[in-house]
Amino acid sequence: MAIAPWITYRPELKVLDCTIRDGGLINDHMFDDGFVQAVYNACVEAGIDYMELGYKASKKLFAPDEFGAWKHCDEDDMRRIVGENRTDLKLTAMADAGKSDWRTDILPKKESVLDVIRVAFYVHQVSEAVDMIRCAADRGYEVTANLMAVSTAQEKEVDQALEVLAETPAGTLVVVDSFGSLYAEQVELLVKKYLKYGEATGKVVGMHAHNNQQLAFANTIEAIIHGANRVDASMGGLGRGAGNCPMELLIGFLRNPKFKLRPIYQVLESCLLPLSRQVEWGPLPQYNITGQCNQHPREAMAARADAQRRDKYVEFYDRLVNDV
Amino acid sequence: MAIAPWITYRPELKVLDCTIRDGGLINDHMFDDGFVQAVYNACVEAGIDYMELGYKASKKLFAPDEFGAWKHCDEDDMRRIVGENRTDLKLTAMADAGKSDWRTDILPKKESVLDVIRVAFYVHQVSEAVDMIRCAADRGYEVTANLMAVSTAQEKEVDQALEVLAETPAGTLVVVDSFGSLYAEQVELLVKKYLKYGEATGKVVGMHAHNNQQLAFANTIEAIIHGANRVDASMGGLGRGAGNCPMELLIGFLRNPKFKLRPIYQVLESCLLPLSRQVEWGPLPQYNITGQCNQHPREAMAARADAQRRDKYVEFYDRLVNDV
Repeated sequence: MAIAPWITYRPELKVLDCTIRDGGLINDHMFDDGFVQAVYNACVEAGIDYMELGYKASKKLFAPDEFGAWKHCDEDDMRRIVGENRTDLKLTAMADAGKSDWRTDILPKKESVLDVIRVAFYVHQVSEAVDMIRCAADRGYEVTANLMAVSTAQEKEVDQALEVLAETPAGTLVVVDSFGSLYAEQVELLVKKYLKYGEATGKVVGMHAHNNQQLAFANTIEAIIHGANRVDASMGGLGRGAGNCPMELLIGFLRNPKFKLRPIYQVLESCLLPLSRQVEWGPLPQYNITGQCNQHPREAMAARADAQRRDKYVEFYDRLVNDV
Repeated sequence: MAIAPWITYRPELKVLDCTIRDGGLINDHMFDDGFVQAVYNACVEAGIDYMELGYKASKKLFAPDEFGAWKHCDEDDMRRIVGENRTDLKLTAMADAGKSDWRTDILPKKESVLDVIRVAFYVHQVSEAVDMIRCAADRGYEVTANLMAVSTAQEKEVDQALEVLAETPAGTLVVVDSFGSLYAEQVELLVKKYLKYGEATGKVVGMHAHNNQQLAFANTIEAIIHGANRVDASMGGLGRGAGNCPMELLIGFLRNPKFKLRPIYQVLESCLLPLSRQVEWGPLPQYNITGQCNQHPREAMAARADAQRRDKYVEFYDRLVNDV
């Protein structure tokens, strides 16, 4: 019998574009409308299932005059790009526990062009996350639970969080490798664990990978192999620090004929290439090192931002290794 | 029972550095001695097992005045860098079927500082490869068989080649993803196949990955998981086109305490970073596309070398997809 699962496809596997949401972390979400419009159009043309427009972040913590529109995703801003979004593309926004005035800022679904709220939280914030998930579900949204930085949480904590999340109305539990530190075998164990906890209440499992060790695409494939059916990617891998799983690689891998690759290369050429001349992202040596050390990339971002330190890999390595 | 195989190690897993050999394909092997010396020193300090100094290429086909010393690996050139190589690092050179005057240019082992000859060949050249392997083994070398471009060979051809190679004195059969097109599941099948054919005659299996789809490191991990015990990498991923598995990622992943990461970041800082300002390599969009199409990267290299075409990803995509 032939065994070549990589040439067939699972219709239930869905792709989320986080170019604007995660990518906005490199420029305080100050994209011009043309950029956001180009990404939106490409998502529609490429057959992508979800597009994340940005955050529902607190205007008290993140002042509107210091951040672009995609930090808050007000309805007027979103509709300026997507109109009534009469397409098959579902729109999402992310709300972070501790950083969102979700009680007031997440409108009832019928007043919003958004379809999905993705709730992001660290393991110690799971109780607020549960409240957020219930609130968003009550208001009519599809909801996901994105437990961040799972690579630094203790296994008992993760288990308990998943036990609690399994009872919420979140439809998707997302494995989030915030530091880009996970290897294939760890991804396999986590996906299987999330599937196990979500099974009884019919949840699907997602994957959100970071590219610190050039493993974002590979770990996304690994998650798919083991049953993840919601996967995140961004065009050109745009994202904070090392960036995300590149959409152009993911769509090239998936064999569902509804996905089209050409619109993504169009956005790479017209939007991401010019942006790459102004800001930097990708799996550069400092990000390799924080990924290897399972650390937040903030030290690496600081080193890359400093022209005096940017090229001093060994100094950075010594500092990180000696500080552990 | 705890299952965390990624935090232990296999002592029998050995690493080969191909920075100079594969990297030399981007500059006709014209490295200055300081560069080669720095890579050699780093290999010794990092505990790397093998360093590939270059090719044993025909001087008739590759004129010595048009190529650097590492295209031919004459003894005098090698000894200028490594002396008598009184270290644990084994030295290798690659001989390509059809491009090497191996009968005359591979000296008896006792006259050479080389320890290993790696024989590279396409599947249709397996008969010459067998002769080369026997010759190198007879002259006293450890020998590997590197069947290139396996992603475009037919399965029956690969099976037959492996059947023949299993009877040779080659100690290692290397899975070579020349076009950087293989996905994890394909790597798994190939590694298992090579292991199966090599089992009776005690051969080990190696992996040589290319980074066209940002999968070189991941596919190397995949090969290791499934039993490959010889793996290739290059510092900074230096190599033709998209480059190879980055040594700094591989060594960061391996848990054998004999491997040291710091000397590699030193070479990245002192040698690879300056080189990257003169020549280009890495998983750029054109290489993504040839990898996705399972094609030789020559079209991508031509597009990257042409300032008028370098930024035109869509034109390149259209041409490649329409030419299939």
